[in-house]
Amino acid sequence: MTVVSINGEIHNGAEASISVFDHGFLYGDSVYETIRTFRREPFLLNEHINRLRNSCDSIGIKITLNDDSFFNEIKKLQNYIDTEEYYYRIIITRGNGEFGYRINPEQKPNIIIFCKEFKGFSREWYETGITLYTVKRRRNHINCLDPSIKSSNLLNLRLAYNEAEKLGGQEAILLNLDGNIAECSSSSIFFIKERELLTPSLESGILPGITREFILRIADNLNIPYHENFIPESIIYACDECFITSTIKSVLPVSKIDERMFEDTPGVLTKTIMEAFNKATLGQMPLIA
Amino acid sequence: MTVVSINGEIHNGAEASISVFDHGFLYGDSVYETIRTFRREPFLLNEHINRLRNSCDSIGIKITLNDDSFFNEIKKLQNYIDTEEYYYRIIITRGNGEFGYRINPEQKPNIIIFCKEFKGFSREWYETGITLYTVKRRRNHINCLDPSIKSSNLLNLRLAYNEAEKLGGQEAILLNLDGNIAECSSSSIFFIKERELLTPSLESGILPGITREFILRIADNLNIPYHENFIPESIIYACDECFITSTIKSVLPVSKIDERMFEDTPGVLTKTIMEAFNKATLGQMPLIA
Repeated sequence: MTVVSINGEIHNGAEASISVFDHGFLYGDSVYETIRTFRREPFLLNEHINRLRNSCDSIGIKITLNDDSFFNEIKKLQNYIDTEEYYYRIIITRGNGEFGYRINPEQKPNIIIFCKEFKGFSREWYETGITLYTVKRRRNHINCLDPSIKSSNLLNLRLAYNEAEKLGGQEAILLNLDGNIAECSSSSIFFIKERELLTPSLESGILPGITREFILRIADNLNIPYHENFIPESIIYACDECFITSTIKSVLPVSKIDERMFEDTPGVLTKTIMEAFNKATLGQMPLIA
Repeated sequence: MTVVSINGEIHNGAEASISVFDHGFLYGDSVYETIRTFRREPFLLNEHINRLRNSCDSIGIKITLNDDSFFNEIKKLQNYIDTEEYYYRIIITRGNGEFGYRINPEQKPNIIIFCKEFKGFSREWYETGITLYTVKRRRNHINCLDPSIKSSNLLNLRLAYNEAEKLGGQEAILLNLDGNIAECSSSSIFFIKERELLTPSLESGILPGITREFILRIADNLNIPYHENFIPESIIYACDECFITSTIKSVLPVSKIDERMFEDTPGVLTKTIMEAFNKATLGQMPLIA
């Protein structure tokens, strides 16, 4: 079951609907965040709300809701479903309007918050790893639609995912137009080479992943050197380990990319990071920023 | 007033709504067409329905509706509003589904058809021309999300339009990432130089405009030479005339691009083409294909 708040009104998911004149529906003109709970508390909520505000700013959607109201809106949804853990999707659209691209200062954003049980992925994936495929489709270019904006123009990513899915993979790696590694369809990607962590820089044209950033803080705390860089596709065959991260996936080890197989997945350093991540989310490892 | 058919059910526009689980809403995972009538007959309907089918095919949305059913669905909406001319927006979404990008063969597309009065733009625009601005934002790259697919991932175009709007323009020119001219936010663009017609080739990364194609047929019939090519930005200062086309705009002359002013807008050849277009839409000029 899913409960959905639409501009503060609570609906059963099956009945929740939005005007066909909503510009999110007409133009994909909306931004979103996905948030999960650990022990019923939304994890890294401030970071998610900040990024949501950045996305809104980048495309000129103005929201008046303050952080506390956001927090309350999110928390109150937990009264409608009883489950161990929750996950949320917050969507902010430009709002209902006439056809056309003109800026209308009167247009009022629609705020939709989904809340449902958090189930996560199969335990097996974490124990033995998943398969990624490098797809032909390239990640959107910064000068066209900046991937740092978490907008609902998601066809680029969805079609990339479907390309990998048809090959039997569980996630897709997208290169940018320069041929460097960007990110996965809904995950950030990390490589380990000679006991150092490598991940594409924000300048590679990616989302500033909140779990990605959290992993870099963990690496700092564990004294694992890390580098944010342009990373060529050849890393796939040159690296020792690989994992991907996202709000929903946490840290997910990779056992195969294209024709490259990894032995002993998860690898040593990946396992260390997975364990540190789990501790940190349980509050057992206070991170020094 | 607008009437909206959602999967064949007719609604008053103000009440027409769609599930928040519609993947068009969640991911911009939908395609669309805009169609107008001339003398109450949908103009170039077959061409629009064909392009709609091509867009669906390109992103893997399967529709079972045959051409006649489409035609009937569209025509029957005219029973609900009485106006001189109509215009339609047909949106086909991937349909309602769970969160996630996985292909679900059970997912059934939603078909939404809007019908409303066609009003067109101010007469003045056609008599004295409009202003275009070349914007910083570049058109989506073919390898990321092919502009030949008329999808609802429209932020690239909307934000481009808003850039031109803030400068006081009525339309934006987007270059592609190679720096050549692509198209406008919702129009195709034509230049005239030494009595020849120039327009960006499909390989420039543009929508195969239906009005664009119709204009090329008119040019053929009028024995005006035309070229579809990669067109550098410098054409703006090198050309003699410029106009833009779309279903809603028909042929709209341009009086200014950036700092380039055009004298006597519409220019001689633009006027000839505007007149031929008007005749052709009234059936007074049968076109030889």
